[in-house]
Amino acid sequence: MSFELLSENRSFGGSQKVFRHPSNSCGCDMTFAAYLPPQAEDGPVPVLWYLSGLTCTHENAMTKAGLQEHASRHGLAVIYPDTSPRGTGVADDEAYDLGQGAGFYVNATRDPWRSHFRMYDYVVNELRGAVLENLPLLDRHGITGHSMGGHGAIIMAVRNPDLFDSLSAFAPIANPTQSDWGRKQLSAYLGDDETEWSDYDSTLLLEEHGWKSDILVDQGASDQFLDLLRPEALAKTMAKCRLPGTVRIQRGYDHSYYFVNTFAGDHVAWHAERLN
Amino acid sequence: MSFELLSENRSFGGSQKVFRHPSNSCGCDMTFAAYLPPQAEDGPVPVLWYLSGLTCTHENAMTKAGLQEHASRHGLAVIYPDTSPRGTGVADDEAYDLGQGAGFYVNATRDPWRSHFRMYDYVVNELRGAVLENLPLLDRHGITGHSMGGHGAIIMAVRNPDLFDSLSAFAPIANPTQSDWGRKQLSAYLGDDETEWSDYDSTLLLEEHGWKSDILVDQGASDQFLDLLRPEALAKTMAKCRLPGTVRIQRGYDHSYYFVNTFAGDHVAWHAERLN
Repeated sequence: MSFELLSENRSFGGSQKVFRHPSNSCGCDMTFAAYLPPQAEDGPVPVLWYLSGLTCTHENAMTKAGLQEHASRHGLAVIYPDTSPRGTGVADDEAYDLGQGAGFYVNATRDPWRSHFRMYDYVVNELRGAVLENLPLLDRHGITGHSMGGHGAIIMAVRNPDLFDSLSAFAPIANPTQSDWGRKQLSAYLGDDETEWSDYDSTLLLEEHGWKSDILVDQGASDQFLDLLRPEALAKTMAKCRLPGTVRIQRGYDHSYYFVNTFAGDHVAWHAERLN
Repeated sequence: MSFELLSENRSFGGSQKVFRHPSNSCGCDMTFAAYLPPQAEDGPVPVLWYLSGLTCTHENAMTKAGLQEHASRHGLAVIYPDTSPRGTGVADDEAYDLGQGAGFYVNATRDPWRSHFRMYDYVVNELRGAVLENLPLLDRHGITGHSMGGHGAIIMAVRNPDLFDSLSAFAPIANPTQSDWGRKQLSAYLGDDETEWSDYDSTLLLEEHGWKSDILVDQGASDQFLDLLRPEALAKTMAKCRLPGTVRIQRGYDHSYYFVNTFAGDHVAWHAERLN
């Protein structure tokens, strides 16, 4: 598979690129962003995956999360996938939290979603393989994300400890099987048998499988979506199961990119320490 | 005058706010953004003015320029004004580079612009006075900006050395009287007598008045608008007049916020050193 370069901007000595490519998993063209730090000019570098939240494309974090400065300093690439398949032939819903822009990083098994909504396979297998083939990257991966993307990061890492080496999340949807950010979508994408949902719930997955290394989670104490995110479920499970890691409740911070941007440096450093 | 708070987000320990207020200069409501660093909780802090470029509102730089991180470290507030008056009763033009979003930081003297397009007075006098009255700020000001905003920063500082103490610019429109980013707008806003234009041309003003301190200018070598910006006129004048300062031509960088973001830390540090 080859990538079509859509844009390229110099950033902190490296290059912020946007690519498009045909996706087998999603059955449509997909767009993603890739930051390559200056170190990538001298040889392959480790990769940090950043999964975005509801309503976002590849572009929001690329312009607003401020990861490039830190990735440049630490010599990490950053890959920013889109949050769903897109296009006129792709199913959608009027709600902002279902359909296009709201893929929830699952492999849908129900109509009308199952023909395109396979973001789990897309990120873990197809795009991971494609960027390794086309970009100067080492096969060493950290993963993080914000909100729905924090959920995606945790489920992908915990289910694939052989593929991911470091893990963090910003205000993840931590327990979607018990939240209105989850029950509606998992029901639509996977059907009403709730036993099918547990593969996509960070808290349940961590309780069952643990994680091979440690986890960093930041959560704003003034987040307007705390009831939907359920950080208390994740924190309780990490403590109960004695999972190494750090959960930080950050006074005064909300759910916005100002929160992500503020702690982006800590997360990139966390991953760099574990990947380099 | 009092401000109406439109939004507030915690950012790097400080607060990114957006305010609206009625403006006498512009004859309409104006919106601007203000970043207050954590140090402002303990007492007033110096101010860095950031003037934005064509098509921008107060919001673009606030979300994409990455100034907050550095302003937080150095204890500077940042004020991000809008780039023009706005509203249904305000004159406009179909072109992106004239009318709303393109005020060029002048006081217009020609119809249909003169009733609202007074961005020079608005920033230098009205908004400067209002933020000093309403926010925990010291009466010590640096000024910078990007593109049309770099032009605004230089003309405001050079014409008001008693009001501004430090000066820098990102890819400024450096010589608008000799550029298609300038001649059209100055003609529309000020009329066809070109002697009226020289008060709004950074290169001509620096040649005539100099600047009391030193100037930092960054310019991308791969900027897609180099012919319109005319950095060579500014650089020549600074050298010819022996004006202290630094002009950096940055290999590979274009005109985007990726360029501004990359060098934002250097500019904030430059101002902090001169304001603190």
